[in-house]
Amino acid sequence: MNSIVRDMDLKDEGLQKIEWVRRHMPLLDALEARFVKEQPFAGLRVALSIHLEAKTARLALLLKAGGADMHVTGSNPLSTQDAIAAALASQGVRVCAYHAATPEEYHAHLTQTLSCKPHIVVDDGGDLVHILHEERHDLAECVLGGCEETTTGVLRLRARARESKLNFPMVCVNDAMMKYLFDNRYGTGQSVWDGIMRTTNLIVAGTTVVVAGYGWCGKGVAMRAKGLGAQVIVTEVDPVRAVEAVMDGFDVMPMDDAAELGDLFITVTGCNDVIVERHFEKMKEGALLCNAGHFDVEVAVEKLKRFADSHAPARANIEGYRLPNGRTVYLIAQGRLVNLAAGDGHPAEIMDISFALQALCAEYVARHAQSLPRGEVREVPREIDAQVARMKLESLGLSIDALTEKQAQYLASWAGE
Amino acid sequence: MNSIVRDMDLKDEGLQKIEWVRRHMPLLDALEARFVKEQPFAGLRVALSIHLEAKTARLALLLKAGGADMHVTGSNPLSTQDAIAAALASQGVRVCAYHAATPEEYHAHLTQTLSCKPHIVVDDGGDLVHILHEERHDLAECVLGGCEETTTGVLRLRARARESKLNFPMVCVNDAMMKYLFDNRYGTGQSVWDGIMRTTNLIVAGTTVVVAGYGWCGKGVAMRAKGLGAQVIVTEVDPVRAVEAVMDGFDVMPMDDAAELGDLFITVTGCNDVIVERHFEKMKEGALLCNAGHFDVEVAVEKLKRFADSHAPARANIEGYRLPNGRTVYLIAQGRLVNLAAGDGHPAEIMDISFALQALCAEYVARHAQSLPRGEVREVPREIDAQVARMKLESLGLSIDALTEKQAQYLASWAGE
Amino acid sequence: MNSIVRDMDLKDEGLQKIEWVRRHMPLLDALEARFVKEQPFAGLRVALSIHLEAKTARLALLLKAGGADMHVTGSNPLSTQDAIAAALASQGVRVCAYHAATPEEYHAHLTQTLSCKPHIVVDDGGDLVHILHEERHDLAECVLGGCEETTTGVLRLRARARESKLNFPMVCVNDAMMKYLFDNRYGTGQSVWDGIMRTTNLIVAGTTVVVAGYGWCGKGVAMRAKGLGAQVIVTEVDPVRAVEAVMDGFDVMPMDDAAELGDLFITVTGCNDVIVERHFEKMKEGALLCNAGHFDVEVAVEKLKRFADSHAPARANIEGYRLPNGRTVYLIAQGRLVNLAAGDGHPAEIMDISFALQALCAEYVARHAQSLPRGEVREVPREIDAQVARMKLESLGLSIDALTEKQAQYLASWAGE
Amino acid sequence: MNSIVRDMDLKDEGLQKIEWVRRHMPLLDALEARFVKEQPFAGLRVALSIHLEAKTARLALLLKAGGADMHVTGSNPLSTQDAIAAALASQGVRVCAYHAATPEEYHAHLTQTLSCKPHIVVDDGGDLVHILHEERHDLAECVLGGCEETTTGVLRLRARARESKLNFPMVCVNDAMMKYLFDNRYGTGQSVWDGIMRTTNLIVAGTTVVVAGYGWCGKGVAMRAKGLGAQVIVTEVDPVRAVEAVMDGFDVMPMDDAAELGDLFITVTGCNDVIVERHFEKMKEGALLCNAGHFDVEVAVEKLKRFADSHAPARANIEGYRLPNGRTVYLIAQGRLVNLAAGDGHPAEIMDISFALQALCAEYVARHAQSLPRGEVREVPREIDAQVARMKLESLGLSIDALTEKQAQYLASWAGE
Repeated sequence: MNSIVRDMDLKDEGLQKIEWVRRHMPLLDALEARFVKEQPFAGLRVALSIHLEAKTARLALLLKAGGADMHVTGSNPLSTQDAIAAALASQGVRVCAYHAATPEEYHAHLTQTLSCKPHIVVDDGGDLVHILHEERHDLAECVLGGCEETTTGVLRLRARARESKLNFPMVCVNDAMMKYLFDNRYGTGQSVWDGIMRTTNLIVAGTTVVVAGYGWCGKGVAMRAKGLGAQVIVTEVDPVRAVEAVMDGFDVMPMDDAAELGDLFITVTGCNDVIVERHFEKMKEGALLCNAGHFDVEVAVEKLKRFADSHAPARANIEGYRLPNGRTVYLIAQGRLVNLAAGDGHPAEIMDISFALQALCAEYVARHAQSLPRGEVREVPREIDAQVARMKLESLGLSIDALTEKQAQYLASWAGE
Repeated sequence: MNSIVRDMDLKDEGLQKIEWVRRHMPLLDALEARFVKEQPFAGLRVALSIHLEAKTARLALLLKAGGADMHVTGSNPLSTQDAIAAALASQGVRVCAYHAATPEEYHAHLTQTLSCKPHIVVDDGGDLVHILHEERHDLAECVLGGCEETTTGVLRLRARARESKLNFPMVCVNDAMMKYLFDNRYGTGQSVWDGIMRTTNLIVAGTTVVVAGYGWCGKGVAMRAKGLGAQVIVTEVDPVRAVEAVMDGFDVMPMDDAAELGDLFITVTGCNDVIVERHFEKMKEGALLCNAGHFDVEVAVEKLKRFADSHAPARANIEGYRLPNGRTVYLIAQGRLVNLAAGDGHPAEIMDISFALQALCAEYVARHAQSLPRGEVREVPREIDAQVARMKLESLGLSIDALTEKQAQYLASWAGE
Repeated sequence: MNSIVRDMDLKDEGLQKIEWVRRHMPLLDALEARFVKEQPFAGLRVALSIHLEAKTARLALLLKAGGADMHVTGSNPLSTQDAIAAALASQGVRVCAYHAATPEEYHAHLTQTLSCKPHIVVDDGGDLVHILHEERHDLAECVLGGCEETTTGVLRLRARARESKLNFPMVCVNDAMMKYLFDNRYGTGQSVWDGIMRTTNLIVAGTTVVVAGYGWCGKGVAMRAKGLGAQVIVTEVDPVRAVEAVMDGFDVMPMDDAAELGDLFITVTGCNDVIVERHFEKMKEGALLCNAGHFDVEVAVEKLKRFADSHAPARANIEGYRLPNGRTVYLIAQGRLVNLAAGDGHPAEIMDISFALQALCAEYVARHAQSLPRGEVREVPREIDAQVARMKLESLGLSIDALTEKQAQYLASWAGE
Repeated sequence: MNSIVRDMDLKDEGLQKIEWVRRHMPLLDALEARFVKEQPFAGLRVALSIHLEAKTARLALLLKAGGADMHVTGSNPLSTQDAIAAALASQGVRVCAYHAATPEEYHAHLTQTLSCKPHIVVDDGGDLVHILHEERHDLAECVLGGCEETTTGVLRLRARARESKLNFPMVCVNDAMMKYLFDNRYGTGQSVWDGIMRTTNLIVAGTTVVVAGYGWCGKGVAMRAKGLGAQVIVTEVDPVRAVEAVMDGFDVMPMDDAAELGDLFITVTGCNDVIVERHFEKMKEGALLCNAGHFDVEVAVEKLKRFADSHAPARANIEGYRLPNGRTVYLIAQGRLVNLAAGDGHPAEIMDISFALQALCAEYVARHAQSLPRGEVREVPREIDAQVARMKLESLGLSIDALTEKQAQYLASWAGE
């Protein structure tokens, strides 16, 4: 089975990028040292679909070093980097992906990747799992289980499990503390702003930024907006999170009110139709729109296209939409994940943590395949969380306190003072 | 049964303070309107032990308005305010508490309060529950259940439940999102610094503050330290929280290393012996020590007293301890909860939220007494959390988005984009 | 000439407070070591009027140690602490001041202090200079010059100098970088919030705070408001500062618009009538008002009294004013400097810096009396600024880089790269 | 005289970029409306040397609209964007500049630009002024005066003026409040981090960032580092700024100590040799180096090249230097201005402010040529500062308070309360 990539000549550029991130992913290095010896994935085929840039390539190479037969594709046509695909293909990994694939091509890449009949699936957003359940049961016959990276994917898995439509165990990497507290918050927080700033060359300080959604990703995006000097308006549907946003010093209101106040809108909800026609219509001349949620449905791009009188490129990766009211709003990166479609995704050190979880959870699936109940959406074992945290502290050269025996007794006791 | 208070002549001062907080506790006002009509506590005796200052008095009066026969004491001899005790006693609540009670007197006040043979106990730290189980079974015969306010109390309850030594159901108010996300974080965060600043009159900006413990309280204390311009060192025993502190921009190290760097130490762990002799010994001349955890055992005060050559008052509520090495360290408020023993406790609006939870959980116990399993440590029902959040938004005049039916379907679906 | 104080029995309490701040004012200690030897003030009478609390007492004792015959009063009837006055009187300083003096008594204290016929005046707000020029020329006959501590006082001096109505040289301590960058910003920033939090026991996070004035004091107050979790609205009359506030992430608008949005108003402008009837009228029920500017005319207190239907105490140091529209607004500390009239003023370490400047400037006047042009408002010599900065770094145990000769040449050259 | 650019085919790309920034530079639009009518530069030749990207092009077109005959070059070979040069050339402006010119070519471009014998020079860093004084007196014969954009250029002008070697008046645009408070602080603060994040794809949160220099640029860089979650170490040679950095919550130490602690170093001093061999040697494996000062001499790049055993590209625009001690450090953008050589420079709205000052100062030179003393380094008139501030507020739709007559009297009076 051959790789399907855009241009193998790009491999050297890709290898350099992979080498760069490798140097900043010490947890994966530490795991590789062990995996090379223990070969936890010997004899196993792994299908992996994650945004195909340098950090993902590093993960694939780690699993390969652990004995896996790796089959890799992206998880969004715009986030795949052709140089990385080429580089990875040059290292003995089978890759089916290229940048700006059409929806049909993208879907074909997913299926081609699954055609290895994987033992383990590493999914990001749930597309691999979807195909294995809805379209190609035949490719699922060897599946022992898998891991899911995102909030969106976990929502889909839980929906599926509720209807008893999940046929193998999936570990929710997203729900590990070492994932959502870090990747979602600090990773998204930084990479979204990296993407926005480089794409727009506009000031953040003094502007009004509307962040839709105050989950961990939204918290990170709002925190960094404040750190860059913006005023932040948060929109939410969950009252507890809404009060949290108030106490964090942000304005809270419905999108209907925020629409006319924002200079820049960032959706990060996991939900569709967060910004629709009646919001576009109220926006200020020149308002900027982007999305940091998994799918490009949060800003309702199709509705925007139909609603606008015309649209035209305004700067690289920015499209201006002229509305019937004569005003123009600008959409960044076609409403796709702004940190990946207008940037390089999360910083390497963040993905080092997330992918250490992925690697350990994949190992967990490999080692406990027999004992995991089929069809279960499984939490990451707490010990894996703690192990990754300890590895991270070690990589930073930090040590922390340990409870003495007496302190442990005190904490476990009901006697009080 | 009569009240036992220091001086009834103080009641007008206390009533003024209660009236002041009443104006800033709109959630309790809203509940009172309903409780007056529905009388959920009619015929029930409630024993309540919470730091006896104005906000607590407001809660007691709310429960009384809901039909309860109220018996109230404090939860720490230093946090009881005599004017509040007098004011409350003047309003038909039985109060047994005074400021600076000896340990024996304090214990007597707890027992006297329980002598009403309560139906419901509202506890803060677990002392009422302790007496009812270990000392005075006879006073527990009517107990339907109760509520616990603090992390420390919940730890003790769970320890007790693990050993099957809990004889009635207790609701963990502390573990409600509307409690720990707000009271522990924003409440402790502000009130600790209020207490420290007013007591020391020293600068925070540019100093090095050591925060022991990075739970919700510790996060709040560290966040405000940064907001006041300090550099923050965090000590922790939990590796995940330690990495979180790093990513929040704080130094992380063991207390053995932090001891020599800190200008001010704040313990907020729930554990004992966090700062002991070998730490005191390393501290800089003039280091300040205080505690924001429930019990006065985090800074090991007794050990400090024995270790020091001498001690003497240095400013109101600050004691200087001269160490064998010739340096002097200063302990604020005897190592007791610095926000209560050196201040007025959490801001009124924060306690409005926490006590709305308390009131609704007490009502929940009253209404569901029959169906709650005995001996269970019970989570606050999610609906109560959401209800309090909605009440808070309403009191702020804020509204938020609601999911459309289509959005709810999208979120509940496994089909993806 | 005897001291005029409220109660000499309070002196031990005062001495303890002075000792506490002495330990946290290392720059003054270092100066004292030199002054004791050099006696720069030998034979000179010094009249000093600064808010009479512990740090000011420490300054007076330093000047006395340098040989001065000290005559001290306060600079605001509400900020004088009787225990400090007593303590200072017990140490051989003549003191004329007590807390809550009537305007007539306060004025008498100023005149009595000046009756020593001072050689040097240390003024805070300009009252000493005013009396010496407008009322009692006879007491000015020995004056060599003096120092002024505040923005307000400097404004008055410059106005006077413009009209050639200043009869001796005055050094603007306020305009030293080590003064306004630190005392005005970090000192006011912290002490104002200390005063507000201890007096109200209300939450800051999530509220809307209106800061009138975005000079160095206002910047400090706004920065700490943000650090405590508030949303901040800034009002200004200077367009450059207004844009600065926008870029710092704050809302900017006229007070007429801010009046209806604020939960808490803090004036810090140096100007009168910043908040007047038409603003009171628009305010929300329960709005809090306070002032951090030198005089109690920024919130127009007299107008508020006349405008309100009635007023009554609401909590210690808070007065509720019932307005004709039925709403009540609350004024903290009678509209006087909230950090002094509702707290202990700036942190000791801040006043250590400011008073090191004062002491060095007083020494400068003493040593250069002959050469200073009469009637000049004089900048603090840059070398004094740099010296105080170096002393502060030394007291913190910090060292910094020094330019190499080559670097100094590079910087002084026009040749470029 | 023809333009000298790399490739006129790039003009459409350049025009799009210029159009994008034009939409975000409302102050220049407002000035254009007036300039078109008044033609203040009619008959005048203007030589302009500023980093040649879209915002600079917008300024050049504004001056042209005001009647000027424009001759434009860049101010750093790496910051020139060829598409912008082509676009500008297509609009009737003479351009001599291309990206990555050799030092000789770059110098030739400056001279070719000056060969128009300009009436007004708009300089950035001082290279035009240098040539006109040291190399080509013949080209200076028509010069009426000019404007200088940067701290570095102003330093060079003042050095020249001190030696009476400045032959025409130059206005220090850099020293206007609306320049250094905004461009230097918020502009540099954001654009430096934009450049670093996009170039490295590494995390900022939790890292240790060393900022050399705590002037307005350094303050901005440090503030945003904190806002992105980093810990910041500041190095300085000025003691006042060093204390300021301490009070802002940063560590302060000499570079010799900081060298071993930093993960990322940013120089922003205006001085040379800030980081040299003995610092490189102490750095951690993988340390990142970059410069945000005007010239590429702050990180001593030539010394690094000689000191290193070898160097090789590590990622686009990042070079790894392998040191004799076996460790590798990474230099971003060859040590040139990281925000311009690894990004698009300051946000458009910031340059809108700075260039409004430039345009108004150039107009001031044009209108007051006769009355300006030759050889003077002149401050920007305060009224221009205030005018730009008011224009900015207007463009934001904001209004502010105005002093009443009574308030103005109060402020101007020495009478006090």
